[in-house]
Amino acid sequence: MATCVPADTRETSYRQYLDALLGEGLLIASGVPGVYGLSGVFENVIEQFERYVTRMGAHACPEVMRFPPLLSRDSYQQTDHLETFPQLMGSVHSFMGTEEESLALAAKKADGRDWSADLKPTGVMMTPAACYPLYPTARGVLPPGGRIVDLRAFVFRHEPSPDPARMQIFRQREYVRLGTPQQALEHRDFWLTRGLDMLHAVGLPAEPVVANDPFFGRGGRVMVASQREQTLKFELVVPVASADAPTAVVSCNYHLDHFGRAFGITTPDGAYAHSACIGFGLERIALALFKTHGFDPLTWPKPVRDVLSPC
Amino acid sequence: MATCVPADTRETSYRQYLDALLGEGLLIASGVPGVYGLSGVFENVIEQFERYVTRMGAHACPEVMRFPPLLSRDSYQQTDHLETFPQLMGSVHSFMGTEEESLALAAKKADGRDWSADLKPTGVMMTPAACYPLYPTARGVLPPGGRIVDLRAFVFRHEPSPDPARMQIFRQREYVRLGTPQQALEHRDFWLTRGLDMLHAVGLPAEPVVANDPFFGRGGRVMVASQREQTLKFELVVPVASADAPTAVVSCNYHLDHFGRAFGITTPDGAYAHSACIGFGLERIALALFKTHGFDPLTWPKPVRDVLSPC
Repeated sequence: MATCVPADTRETSYRQYLDALLGEGLLIASGVPGVYGLSGVFENVIEQFERYVTRMGAHACPEVMRFPPLLSRDSYQQTDHLETFPQLMGSVHSFMGTEEESLALAAKKADGRDWSADLKPTGVMMTPAACYPLYPTARGVLPPGGRIVDLRAFVFRHEPSPDPARMQIFRQREYVRLGTPQQALEHRDFWLTRGLDMLHAVGLPAEPVVANDPFFGRGGRVMVASQREQTLKFELVVPVASADAPTAVVSCNYHLDHFGRAFGITTPDGAYAHSACIGFGLERIALALFKTHGFDPLTWPKPVRDVLSPC
Repeated sequence: MATCVPADTRETSYRQYLDALLGEGLLIASGVPGVYGLSGVFENVIEQFERYVTRMGAHACPEVMRFPPLLSRDSYQQTDHLETFPQLMGSVHSFMGTEEESLALAAKKADGRDWSADLKPTGVMMTPAACYPLYPTARGVLPPGGRIVDLRAFVFRHEPSPDPARMQIFRQREYVRLGTPQQALEHRDFWLTRGLDMLHAVGLPAEPVVANDPFFGRGGRVMVASQREQTLKFELVVPVASADAPTAVVSCNYHLDHFGRAFGITTPDGAYAHSACIGFGLERIALALFKTHGFDPLTWPKPVRDVLSPC
């Protein structure tokens, strides 16, 4: 979000909220900005919100799929993530050498030298978004009526930050629609409204805004302009660490036939499938709830507790 | 497990069970051996078993912590994982260059060349075991009575395999004890018995065996012998893909003061803390249940369903 708040003021807000979360024990520092352990209280809020998402999507009878935080490197290379978000990628490397080479590796570590160049790339990358692992498995012709898929995964973005809401590794819960342009757009628009209603029902002062992905470099600026002009991406934003720079906690995206083309997914009439998704940023939603209602969920307003923990 | 079954027979068993799981849709192929999506049915079995673990550990009032699949690189370097299991590690690398360098990166990808050498190591490694992220946060003096911590995390092991039970990325649920040698040993022995009872209660023909970690190389063979001689590691094994080479689904470990020394964790009397853990391999337990009781949990024996899904 572009705002007029001085960066140093915002940075101070981030650090204050982060310190409060760490002090309360809701977040546990790992030594790396944006990588935290979560307390049982924090995790329970996420579990409750997930059950709420499940209830609110049950009418669509979605297929449920749960992918791990890793994506095949070959599948990754079929996307344009490397061209458009190289700064965010996570590539997993390992040691594949002989016993002698392992001794050289250990000697480098012992001497405080960089040993990472002795590793080789494995067959996997960190998952950039919860829906990425779905598309390679959907190759071919969709059933009539298309598909609606319920996903959750840890995703990785290499962007160390003092903002507790800007984690490098976090969970997205998504409903993805694969089908015709009309089906995809209807899905996006349905969930834009329902997502906003859901956040309001748990007392979050969320607002929808037209948004863009953080495309890299000069070429990226053209893509940002195009994405915004076509209003392909909306976010639901809530004040979290900073009142003046609200945080996107939900994202509603229409991908056109971007993934249909990349992975050869078609509708029964032979056209490339269009896709859309709503993604709930689970850690961010929990952080927004803690900011809005306080650090102890037992003291949250009754209407909020009733939604998150119905009898 | 060392066995006398010919490797090709075992390999055939692995592929048959994997094909059956993929055909049933319980596992979803990613293109990489050992990296799978899970269906809603599979995930639900894991969630039910986790709630069972929670109930069976509730008497100890454990602290609950949930770490992401990433560990600080600095913390990783304070362990001896690089020396003892280099072949299993996962190091996360990203692109940190200029716009011009990003164009060179993309050109390499377009030409089908290896672009991974253009990346640099980030501040994180894949988590090797669910208890690794705990120890750096426990530095200092333990409270009187020590600590009992309830953990769950995705962990990574670079060992591509056709055995569906040998995943590269999977979840461990653990109870870890930090304290005196006696507290650690009591924890390990208590959970060795309780873990076995728990598996029997869900109809799994589990047996305890003395085990060892897959230490690397010639030096590793000495460590294997020492670990087995001291009976530091027990596993609970169940036939999964192969009847003759049962799979470890639970691991009970006494670490002596290995982690206490590495991370400066002490008991109030100033001695290095000892630690022990029980780790439940959640995907493996689900695979063992599917193998033992069939692919449809609704048809599992009533006593098993009663344990996993109590009213």
